[in-house]
Amino acid sequence: MEPSASSAVDSAADTAPLHPDDEKHNSIADRADTRLAREAHVGQRPGTLTIRAGAMTPRLFLLSYDEGSCTEQEYSDYDELWRFFSTHPELRHWIDVRGYNNLPLMERIMQDFDLHPLQMEDVLGDYQRAKVDVFGDNRLFLVSRMTEFTKLLEIDDDQLSIFTGPNYVLTFQDDYNDCLDTVRQRIRSGYSQIKRKPPLYLAYALTDVVLDQYYPTMAAIGDYVERLEDRILQDRPDRRVLSRILRMKKDIIRFRRFVYPEREKIAEILRMPDDVVPEEMKVYFRDCYDHAIQALDLAESYRESVTSLVELFMSNQSNRMNEVMKVLTIISSIFIPLSFVVGLYGMNFQRENPHGGINYLNMPELYSPWGYPILLAILAVIVMFQLLYFYRKGWLTNR
Amino acid sequence: MEPSASSAVDSAADTAPLHPDDEKHNSIADRADTRLAREAHVGQRPGTLTIRAGAMTPRLFLLSYDEGSCTEQEYSDYDELWRFFSTHPELRHWIDVRGYNNLPLMERIMQDFDLHPLQMEDVLGDYQRAKVDVFGDNRLFLVSRMTEFTKLLEIDDDQLSIFTGPNYVLTFQDDYNDCLDTVRQRIRSGYSQIKRKPPLYLAYALTDVVLDQYYPTMAAIGDYVERLEDRILQDRPDRRVLSRILRMKKDIIRFRRFVYPEREKIAEILRMPDDVVPEEMKVYFRDCYDHAIQALDLAESYRESVTSLVELFMSNQSNRMNEVMKVLTIISSIFIPLSFVVGLYGMNFQRENPHGGINYLNMPELYSPWGYPILLAILAVIVMFQLLYFYRKGWLTNR
Amino acid sequence: MEPSASSAVDSAADTAPLHPDDEKHNSIADRADTRLAREAHVGQRPGTLTIRAGAMTPRLFLLSYDEGSCTEQEYSDYDELWRFFSTHPELRHWIDVRGYNNLPLMERIMQDFDLHPLQMEDVLGDYQRAKVDVFGDNRLFLVSRMTEFTKLLEIDDDQLSIFTGPNYVLTFQDDYNDCLDTVRQRIRSGYSQIKRKPPLYLAYALTDVVLDQYYPTMAAIGDYVERLEDRILQDRPDRRVLSRILRMKKDIIRFRRFVYPEREKIAEILRMPDDVVPEEMKVYFRDCYDHAIQALDLAESYRESVTSLVELFMSNQSNRMNEVMKVLTIISSIFIPLSFVVGLYGMNFQRENPHGGINYLNMPELYSPWGYPILLAILAVIVMFQLLYFYRKGWLTNR
Amino acid sequence: MEPSASSAVDSAADTAPLHPDDEKHNSIADRADTRLAREAHVGQRPGTLTIRAGAMTPRLFLLSYDEGSCTEQEYSDYDELWRFFSTHPELRHWIDVRGYNNLPLMERIMQDFDLHPLQMEDVLGDYQRAKVDVFGDNRLFLVSRMTEFTKLLEIDDDQLSIFTGPNYVLTFQDDYNDCLDTVRQRIRSGYSQIKRKPPLYLAYALTDVVLDQYYPTMAAIGDYVERLEDRILQDRPDRRVLSRILRMKKDIIRFRRFVYPEREKIAEILRMPDDVVPEEMKVYFRDCYDHAIQALDLAESYRESVTSLVELFMSNQSNRMNEVMKVLTIISSIFIPLSFVVGLYGMNFQRENPHGGINYLNMPELYSPWGYPILLAILAVIVMFQLLYFYRKGWLTNR
Amino acid sequence: MEPSASSAVDSAADTAPLHPDDEKHNSIADRADTRLAREAHVGQRPGTLTIRAGAMTPRLFLLSYDEGSCTEQEYSDYDELWRFFSTHPELRHWIDVRGYNNLPLMERIMQDFDLHPLQMEDVLGDYQRAKVDVFGDNRLFLVSRMTEFTKLLEIDDDQLSIFTGPNYVLTFQDDYNDCLDTVRQRIRSGYSQIKRKPPLYLAYALTDVVLDQYYPTMAAIGDYVERLEDRILQDRPDRRVLSRILRMKKDIIRFRRFVYPEREKIAEILRMPDDVVPEEMKVYFRDCYDHAIQALDLAESYRESVTSLVELFMSNQSNRMNEVMKVLTIISSIFIPLSFVVGLYGMNFQRENPHGGINYLNMPELYSPWGYPILLAILAVIVMFQLLYFYRKGWLTNR
Repeated sequence: MEPSASSAVDSAADTAPLHPDDEKHNSIADRADTRLAREAHVGQRPGTLTIRAGAMTPRLFLLSYDEGSCTEQEYSDYDELWRFFSTHPELRHWIDVRGYNNLPLMERIMQDFDLHPLQMEDVLGDYQRAKVDVFGDNRLFLVSRMTEFTKLLEIDDDQLSIFTGPNYVLTFQDDYNDCLDTVRQRIRSGYSQIKRKPPLYLAYALTDVVLDQYYPTMAAIGDYVERLEDRILQDRPDRRVLSRILRMKKDIIRFRRFVYPEREKIAEILRMPDDVVPEEMKVYFRDCYDHAIQALDLAESYRESVTSLVELFMSNQSNRMNEVMKVLTIISSIFIPLSFVVGLYGMNFQRENPHGGINYLNMPELYSPWGYPILLAILAVIVMFQLLYFYRKGWLTNR
Repeated sequence: MEPSASSAVDSAADTAPLHPDDEKHNSIADRADTRLAREAHVGQRPGTLTIRAGAMTPRLFLLSYDEGSCTEQEYSDYDELWRFFSTHPELRHWIDVRGYNNLPLMERIMQDFDLHPLQMEDVLGDYQRAKVDVFGDNRLFLVSRMTEFTKLLEIDDDQLSIFTGPNYVLTFQDDYNDCLDTVRQRIRSGYSQIKRKPPLYLAYALTDVVLDQYYPTMAAIGDYVERLEDRILQDRPDRRVLSRILRMKKDIIRFRRFVYPEREKIAEILRMPDDVVPEEMKVYFRDCYDHAIQALDLAESYRESVTSLVELFMSNQSNRMNEVMKVLTIISSIFIPLSFVVGLYGMNFQRENPHGGINYLNMPELYSPWGYPILLAILAVIVMFQLLYFYRKGWLTNR
Repeated sequence: MEPSASSAVDSAADTAPLHPDDEKHNSIADRADTRLAREAHVGQRPGTLTIRAGAMTPRLFLLSYDEGSCTEQEYSDYDELWRFFSTHPELRHWIDVRGYNNLPLMERIMQDFDLHPLQMEDVLGDYQRAKVDVFGDNRLFLVSRMTEFTKLLEIDDDQLSIFTGPNYVLTFQDDYNDCLDTVRQRIRSGYSQIKRKPPLYLAYALTDVVLDQYYPTMAAIGDYVERLEDRILQDRPDRRVLSRILRMKKDIIRFRRFVYPEREKIAEILRMPDDVVPEEMKVYFRDCYDHAIQALDLAESYRESVTSLVELFMSNQSNRMNEVMKVLTIISSIFIPLSFVVGLYGMNFQRENPHGGINYLNMPELYSPWGYPILLAILAVIVMFQLLYFYRKGWLTNR
Repeated sequence: MEPSASSAVDSAADTAPLHPDDEKHNSIADRADTRLAREAHVGQRPGTLTIRAGAMTPRLFLLSYDEGSCTEQEYSDYDELWRFFSTHPELRHWIDVRGYNNLPLMERIMQDFDLHPLQMEDVLGDYQRAKVDVFGDNRLFLVSRMTEFTKLLEIDDDQLSIFTGPNYVLTFQDDYNDCLDTVRQRIRSGYSQIKRKPPLYLAYALTDVVLDQYYPTMAAIGDYVERLEDRILQDRPDRRVLSRILRMKKDIIRFRRFVYPEREKIAEILRMPDDVVPEEMKVYFRDCYDHAIQALDLAESYRESVTSLVELFMSNQSNRMNEVMKVLTIISSIFIPLSFVVGLYGMNFQRENPHGGINYLNMPELYSPWGYPILLAILAVIVMFQLLYFYRKGWLTNR
Repeated sequence: MEPSASSAVDSAADTAPLHPDDEKHNSIADRADTRLAREAHVGQRPGTLTIRAGAMTPRLFLLSYDEGSCTEQEYSDYDELWRFFSTHPELRHWIDVRGYNNLPLMERIMQDFDLHPLQMEDVLGDYQRAKVDVFGDNRLFLVSRMTEFTKLLEIDDDQLSIFTGPNYVLTFQDDYNDCLDTVRQRIRSGYSQIKRKPPLYLAYALTDVVLDQYYPTMAAIGDYVERLEDRILQDRPDRRVLSRILRMKKDIIRFRRFVYPEREKIAEILRMPDDVVPEEMKVYFRDCYDHAIQALDLAESYRESVTSLVELFMSNQSNRMNEVMKVLTIISSIFIPLSFVVGLYGMNFQRENPHGGINYLNMPELYSPWGYPILLAILAVIVMFQLLYFYRKGWLTNR
């Protein structure tokens, strides 16, 4: 999880293109979702484990602690990890698996930790919304979605799967970098609630840190929405701005799709019997619940903001049309009548008729010594009246 | 179920018409639904079996298996099928009826397998939303809707009706090709969960494969939505694009109408008592439930995307109007004043008045030796100032 | 209930006006509803029976049957009907009252059949949404709304009130023609479920036939929506098309208002204790419930379709404006510059100056022997470049 | 409650302004609501009684009755009323207080009839949505909102507060005229249910008459909506029509805000235990419930109608723009090319060159004897082709 | 809480800019919310107390009272306050902490009053929606949001956290000025319910005063909405008006976000068991509940009003385009044909052909003695007909 997302926004503000990668990302359709759809394996036996394309090589981390101590190590060999884990039942362990791309390893972990194939399928699958399952006696299987507002100005999401056990927490994710370092730091540091409480508290801390992560994501979205708004109000926005607004709208909707099940998940935890989630843990999850609701509220607010942006864009577009029309109307309205007048005196009515008589009524103005100056004066007066009219209508002022 | 739907999309992309069959399919109204409505038989005795027009001749398949073996055969004669079925109670059977167009046969199956006439009416009727009924002691009647995104870029749907029995599953559909082959393959293959579990597991596997099938359908829709979006952004979309967007919107809404009851159906299964659906089966249906919810989420997302497309289309239309207006305004604004000026010097004010005097004030410019070049210069300056003005407004740049 | 509604649609398609009675029915406001509102009798004692204006003279029909026989007669005298009814307790009776316009008769029926004044008020009132009441020990009072898509392309609705009794069903409606003839026919025909089941089954059959009737109504609406869409896409729709779309939208909303309480009504029946509605009857009502939900789904679909039509109409309107503007722009852009050029050479700059000198710089072109042909060539080139520009913009192609 | 509201609509139809008081009422913002808000007394002790500005001087009416008799009197002195009331416990009483502007009196009534200060605050306050409270043993406190569609074409609302007691009903309202006269008339008339039933029945009758009153209000709204629609379709609506449509929309939303809690209120009454509201009374309230739901349905319908009016107005506006553009385009397209042609022959290319030679190519048309007639013919042909083109486009027909 | 908000609105009405600080506040995005988001501390140990930037130095007030007396003092030293508080258990206390910027003090208060760290985190955090928690035996933790419509025409909000105890109420807020002075005044004044009731009543009084405060906020919003509407209807609104409407819409949505949890909070209090909130207190909270619902109703109304404003603005914009187009069309339509006519008589068709003959057909009009006057008359007639046409179309009238 890189904190540079918002600085990316700032620096991007200086350069011309609003979006760093306009050519590549010009689609409203949710590519992540279609990818998901494409790779679903229709009709496969449920619980069949398959590794999705592009998964990373697993790295195994073990963080073992009791109230006083904390050891931490990356294992390249699962057997070693398992040996240490199984020979230290007096410690609490956080087995942290990053990367899925090793099917036999995954199957072995599944058997060693007594997981259901359907659960493992949810872990390795393309997309699983946030949820909680109780299994075994009182073990929990929790899924969270971690979000990040990327430099490409899109919301990236990764899945965090958490299994609790009597003295351990087992987590899976398909990414080496994550937003959980603050939790690790808290365990490493001398004194922490996590060390003195049951593994469920660690699961809670992980869930909470993911929820907390939603706020910077929302903040980055908020900044971007503001920048889009400034674009519309100050510059001459082009069509791509609308396309970007609509993409942002879709991203926010997607974000809401992440948060909404998070709320349901925690509500379900709060309804669980006390032997699964003790009352003293529920206090903490109740706090999570508040956070989830507030994140949902925020997402809803941003959605309304983006909808307002569309209205603003449309009105702006109509406004620019108005401006174009006013220029046309002012120039045409002034010069078309003038053209008529000068055309009038360009007519060739003849003073002398063919029989030598004088047609005194045929354009005597043309023969007057003051004809031309008087005409110019009349034209000037016409123009002045028109300008006055347009000024009163407010069409001449800058708006 | 043909996997060629998406390749149809790709190849169609090369040819001009966005829709392969534009003339025939130019209606937003849901023809499938109106057909349904037209053929409803008002006031008929409930439970009266009628075969809808266009139903196919039934083909009967029997797949019999136990844990170790599997035999599979198509029967042209129902009696033979029944004989085999009734003389092998030790096996499990999947009786697979494809095509409805034989009323006596349908009635006979209804009696042999002890189905309620209202259920059979649901099987043979034009449209039955996904549902589940318990009947007999603990038999289930399940209806699923199979979907497919056709080469005609529409969502096709077929109904799959499933009855469970003590040692068999009976399915009905009015189509020879279906998306269930993967399940058949799993039974044929040496080892499968299906063979070792009760018939309800087969019913679950069939329900699950139908749900899985929603994802490629959604993926094809997503591709098509993307292509429509590209059309709007890059080309000059015509009115038919809007008509197609609105049809796609309606298709997505129809799709949601398929999926929504699917979710309700599975939720109802999860609420059933354990003697009807044992707890160990509920684990599997809970997985189905997640899939149904995610399909609904996706459908909702696409609906929002399509709504955004309409906004994009409308804005684009307004944009093109803007462009047209700008061309008109620029050309008119430049040439109408110029025309006035040249009209001015086309006037016929006379230097000599009829009495022989000279009207020195009447257009002396015309007699100046530099009159014409100076005028041309003035006109050039006017044009330059106007171009500068339009350039500053940003009307001359390509956008 | 006339089945000619859809043929009315077809024949109307040939004649010019889309709506057979455009002058009379040009209002969006729901006249039927306002009529209802106007005739409500404010502050009257609840349960006061009043006959609404325009009610029809009652006709009394009695259909008496047991498992083997069926007699059917219209009575002009209620006493005779009552005599026959009360002397044949061994038969089952359907007392079918069509027309309300006889207050004493209505009060007498109310007393004879032991109905509550509030129920009778619901029967005779202007509008009662679908509902069910239990009264007496286990009698039911059911209200259904029968719909019909009329030749005037509107949805007509009538109320059917059903009371069940130990051996009879009593129905009220204010229309001589109805959609219940199929039920009568089933009773008349030799063998029918209705004859062998309790009166509640007849009440169910009547409820079901009303629900079935919704489908042809929806089909007629669907046809009309399609025709409106074709109008928009192919012809030059005028303002009245929009007015008709909006009226159709309102009609569909009204239709949904009929169907929605129908669903609630049946859900309430399904929740009733078994001594009121036995389990074996609930199977049938469960089927009704499915039908009501599907009718609601359809109505929802059509509402979306009509909303899409409004968008299509708006876009079309904007499109036609685009077209008008393009014609104006092309013609103006071509001829205004040309006019300037020819105006230029209409100027009267003089070659001879008054003092006899020659102003060689004053429009020498006019004196060149090739001046005119060259000018024409230049004009032709200008036009060609402009046409090329417009062609590239795609403004010249038919769209 | 004046029945002249709808006649006001009719007479207003003859005069030019659609709204009798356009200058005063040109705001969309809900003035009634802001007034309410402004006069709220922040931070006052709850239950503090204050009389709102503009309240009327109280008038006290006592209607006392038993099954056979009925006496009715207005008291100027509350003591007298109380004396009569307290000395006739064998009668039933309706104490009818109209006008709040006497704080000590209000406090005295509160104490005499044992009301809670918070209830009295609700009575005297600016706005209390419909509600029901049980207090004492089984007394009810009911609030209803009476509506009226005024001559100013707005919905006026007054509050009716009802307290029931063992042998009396106590009502408060701040208006001398109300819609309850029909109830009074029913009590005065020889025979009435009200006289024979407990006070709760009178409370029901009052609640019901308020609900009945909603229908004429809705009818008046419906008429007004129709008239607005006719305005849009037939006349050239100006901006004020939109402003009025939006105000009407707001009024309908406000109306819905009155009716919605009415429904909740009655639903709550229906859920009350039988010792508070006996089953035989619930039959009547169930009827009220139906009426409240139907009023809500109607309000919803009108809201949709008004939304459609906005769309119609917008489309109409766009349509008129279309018309303006077509006139411009037709005239410009015809005359601009013609102007070019005549400009062409206004050029001064010289036949004689300065050196005495003849430039035969310089505009020989001008010297042809048929030049002018042929040119006129050509111009006529051009015009005819253009008219044909526009006719085919349908721009010349009246639409 | 300054009552000057609405007068700020009035005085602002006189000056030109609608918004006092247009440059600074030109963003639709919810800055308050993004600020919140930015300062969230991701991954921190839950319950970690941190003081947000910009918090104020704490001021400590103690209001101690029993039924007869009341002492009030600001303490600069918490120890003194605690000493007085702990040595007077016979009194009731309101400990009123304003300002958070002293972490050790906050932690000490937390310990002394036995608060949970998560609760304290909610108190000190950036944003906590309204909520209620029960803790200890029957203590309540209440959060309310105080609102104010500022001179900057925005809704400002502050958080009020309330803890109840056996003989005290402890409140936190980060603002020296608040809207609670009326409550303090009621305690100081000789006789008050608050003095005679348990501390929960004071908590109720504080909650109620915050709710009451919503009404002036809404009134100020209502005034501003009215002023925006007048702007749109009377002046020529510019783009900034739309931007302000959309900001107001967002503010109202934010306001609704404050009020909605308030309603939930009170509903939860009403559902609490009697040992936590006694029945006699629930009467008061029920009153609060009504107020919360009415505030929500109002907020909903204003939201609809603002949405209508957007429609009005859009229509107005379109209307002004119409006006511009009409001016263009009238002037062009009148003068372009006239220009053609005068151009016609500016043509140079020659009467004498080069061979000396007379071309009698070449523009004989030019040689007629009445040619010019007749032409002028014809032009005048053309103009008159055009004006008549436009008058009939209603384009000349002011609208």
